[in-house]
Amino acid sequence: MAHGQRSRVESHLAEVEALLERALQTRSERIALAAALGRITAEAVASPVDLPLFRNSQMDGVAIRTADLTGLAWREFPIVGEIAAGPAEPQPLEPGTAIRIMTGAVVPRYADVVVPVERTIATEGGVRIDEQWLPGTYIRERGSDLRVGDTLVEADVRLGPRHLAALAASGVAEVHVRQRVRIAILTTGEELVLPGETPRPGQLFDANRFSLAALVEEAGAEVTALEHARDDIRSFGELFDRVRADADLVITSGGISEGTHEVVRETLVPRGAETRHLAMQPGGPQLLGLVDGTPVLGFPGNPVSTQVSFVVFARRALREAAGLPHLSPTHYRLTESLTSPDGMRQFRRGRRVDEDRVEPIGGPSSHLVATMARADVLIEVPDDVVELDAGEDVRTWEL
Amino acid sequence: MAHGQRSRVESHLAEVEALLERALQTRSERIALAAALGRITAEAVASPVDLPLFRNSQMDGVAIRTADLTGLAWREFPIVGEIAAGPAEPQPLEPGTAIRIMTGAVVPRYADVVVPVERTIATEGGVRIDEQWLPGTYIRERGSDLRVGDTLVEADVRLGPRHLAALAASGVAEVHVRQRVRIAILTTGEELVLPGETPRPGQLFDANRFSLAALVEEAGAEVTALEHARDDIRSFGELFDRVRADADLVITSGGISEGTHEVVRETLVPRGAETRHLAMQPGGPQLLGLVDGTPVLGFPGNPVSTQVSFVVFARRALREAAGLPHLSPTHYRLTESLTSPDGMRQFRRGRRVDEDRVEPIGGPSSHLVATMARADVLIEVPDDVVELDAGEDVRTWEL
Repeated sequence: MAHGQRSRVESHLAEVEALLERALQTRSERIALAAALGRITAEAVASPVDLPLFRNSQMDGVAIRTADLTGLAWREFPIVGEIAAGPAEPQPLEPGTAIRIMTGAVVPRYADVVVPVERTIATEGGVRIDEQWLPGTYIRERGSDLRVGDTLVEADVRLGPRHLAALAASGVAEVHVRQRVRIAILTTGEELVLPGETPRPGQLFDANRFSLAALVEEAGAEVTALEHARDDIRSFGELFDRVRADADLVITSGGISEGTHEVVRETLVPRGAETRHLAMQPGGPQLLGLVDGTPVLGFPGNPVSTQVSFVVFARRALREAAGLPHLSPTHYRLTESLTSPDGMRQFRRGRRVDEDRVEPIGGPSSHLVATMARADVLIEVPDDVVELDAGEDVRTWEL
Repeated sequence: MAHGQRSRVESHLAEVEALLERALQTRSERIALAAALGRITAEAVASPVDLPLFRNSQMDGVAIRTADLTGLAWREFPIVGEIAAGPAEPQPLEPGTAIRIMTGAVVPRYADVVVPVERTIATEGGVRIDEQWLPGTYIRERGSDLRVGDTLVEADVRLGPRHLAALAASGVAEVHVRQRVRIAILTTGEELVLPGETPRPGQLFDANRFSLAALVEEAGAEVTALEHARDDIRSFGELFDRVRADADLVITSGGISEGTHEVVRETLVPRGAETRHLAMQPGGPQLLGLVDGTPVLGFPGNPVSTQVSFVVFARRALREAAGLPHLSPTHYRLTESLTSPDGMRQFRRGRRVDEDRVEPIGGPSSHLVATMARADVLIEVPDDVVELDAGEDVRTWEL
């Protein structure tokens, strides 16, 4: 692409999403139920059992045969035993007898009602019952919740507590889920040191390793590598090949501009990646491509540019793959006016002041990382808009 | 409380929340920034440095002194060196000279503008500049984003990627956050086996250990113990004492009804807990209290009752403590009619069919664990309502 010719944000987004589609063709895996919260089912799960597993009592009471009451105003029953919840294989209930039964306990064969204890009258050695009962009352029939083979959880469901409960209740110990998208993160820039180290004049702390890892995790993907690369083509290339082996996608920060010492561009463009110069601020330079079959997204290195690039280009597709709800752009009115260069999509930082209005904070520059932390939305200024008045409607992106 | 006298849901909720308030007086801890995503700051963080750390270039270009152009239509400057991004302590810029400079590089003393490379004309050994420039153009002044000592992140902020970026950029390696609420979970019921085991007749799979652990995690708290207790007062008491040592709250399931063999009630009521019999379905029996200073919530053991109890009584306060957004009850219209016992708060399971309507699924019974998995809301039927027609408005709770 000729220098100075800038791509539109939409066409780049379409290219990135086409690339990510490839990264998101992930495999599935079987995992233990205890580790499955928030994961997405790879296929429908059929119940291996009836639910309830067995016919059981809904109350503490006595189990009897309703036929024993037919036509009678009342009847006394001898109590022939007691069934607690838990392992039990009770004998079939003899006509004219009652058995004490606890909630959840197995109902004996031929018993067809559980009369709650408070609806019985205790007698010596038995109970008196002076009501008619419909068969089945206070009995939970085997399979009345779900039949063996019925679908317990559909495919593509994000597993929440209630799904885990139903799977566990059916004895399902492992579940077949989509593998999380595995993302390797490489930050670049010889000038970077880690927080906790002491920077020499001209050195900066590496913010991107923290924000990218957090953005990936929030989007429901998995960070499989998080490395800072040296500004050396050979060592960058080796590191790239090492991390891509375990990754569906590699995301880099920095090293993609037009200048010299741009290690990501210099390493990956000869291997098939392409750079773009977008009419976008921050986030103008971008790199993308398939390198030996591995999708790569290269974001610019300024800490605000990196975050904006992820939010605008990568977040939606990754959240979708993880079954997370969309954070669709919404609309607010500006509390104050804004200016923006012609032909440039600006993503300004803003703070919601109420349900209706957003306040722009800080300038457009990509180094305002502390200002970004005070923001809760990005304010999108369209390419052809050079001025927005207070009160005008803007599209905002949730941070 | 006399048998048969039932408490209202609201008064129990108020009691539970007063108890949880105590559990939620948690300590704070210092943790590494890389582990801080989603955690809540315990105090405001002041920046230990100016941001940017040093005066640096916003462009690839040449640094000059604007005074050298004053009154001139153009001027040629010899280029006396180059400054790349990275460690550098450049000499002060001599009058009448220019120095090549890269984006992010240290701007030398006395240079007060960076002229972008595309706005210069290359000459032999130098550059020609034929525009006037305002001092400060394309220079990022030290501290222009944030001054040392200024607040980087306020107290009580849930740390997202952008906060981690700003903290890292300031060299902050550890952050002081609220400790997560530590919750020990004890499930009871001799009839329970684990998924993967083979139940004998009368045995069930333990669903509650999975749903409670997941509910606690989703509410932003930490599970410090997850155990199944035997139905034996001494061993339950010992287990309780062991797990409460590392917990701000103990949640139990099962063992709190009026019957015999109710191990949670029989162990904890003598130690100060109280049972309640709520006019609520499912979830009627409840236990709560402070046992030797540890808050305890005892939920009924049926898998649906356990989940409903957590959602109605514990979720709001825990999410609040974790800085998670409220899942406030909302309103939908019923697709079909419902009946409910008089004087009883029912929480029926429902499925949203569109933005406006909810369909009740399954009956009111607490054993319908598979039906619960198909639901996405609880439909609340007020105590004094015995019938609701299709189209009527109901309050629903997000699952």
